[in-house]
Amino acid sequence: MPESFFQVIARYQPREGQLETVLGLLAELTAATRREPACLSFEYFRNVENPEEIVIVECFVDAAGFAAHREAEHFTRIGVEQIVPLLQARSSSKVVATPV
Amino acid sequence: MPESFFQVIARYQPREGQLETVLGLLAELTAATRREPACLSFEYFRNVENPEEIVIVECFVDAAGFAAHREAEHFTRIGVEQIVPLLQARSSSKVVATPV
Repeated sequence: MPESFFQVIARYQPREGQLETVLGLLAELTAATRREPACLSFEYFRNVENPEEIVIVECFVDAAGFAAHREAEHFTRIGVEQIVPLLQARSSSKVVATPV
Repeated sequence: MPESFFQVIARYQPREGQLETVLGLLAELTAATRREPACLSFEYFRNVENPEEIVIVECFVDAAGFAAHREAEHFTRIGVEQIVPLLQARSSSKVVATPV
């Protein structure tokens, strides 16, 4: 595990009936993101207490790596242009994480 | 959000046929843990790419808060004595997280 890394936890609430579509798009975005050099891990989960909520845990080498992710073609094409319009709510928390 | 906090991401692979039982026990452990004074959040998810994997994201005020969690009666009674025997694998990563 590196000295410290940049972690984002994003939360998506898809619009009614859009959960499966969002999960499909997320699979595509995940595969592309994992090929980014600064991506350490990118995983997406269903909240057991709120199955309509998707929780994404993203780890990048550093903030610059996350910034590069947000400028990637696939982030715009899949994330911004296809996933976001299907969401009724979203939020994210960003931290610098230091393993202990 | 506090200056920094202590985050644990734990991963459980329940033994075959034990997923629902573990999720039930985890609901009980979650409720008790959320009542701990140093617990900021405690959530558990299903990995979309590996639905048999449970991922728990736990946030405590600090390392001492996490240590207190591990000494709590409910951690031993539910976590150690009931959940762990139902798991075929488990792992966890611990970080100090500083919001940015």
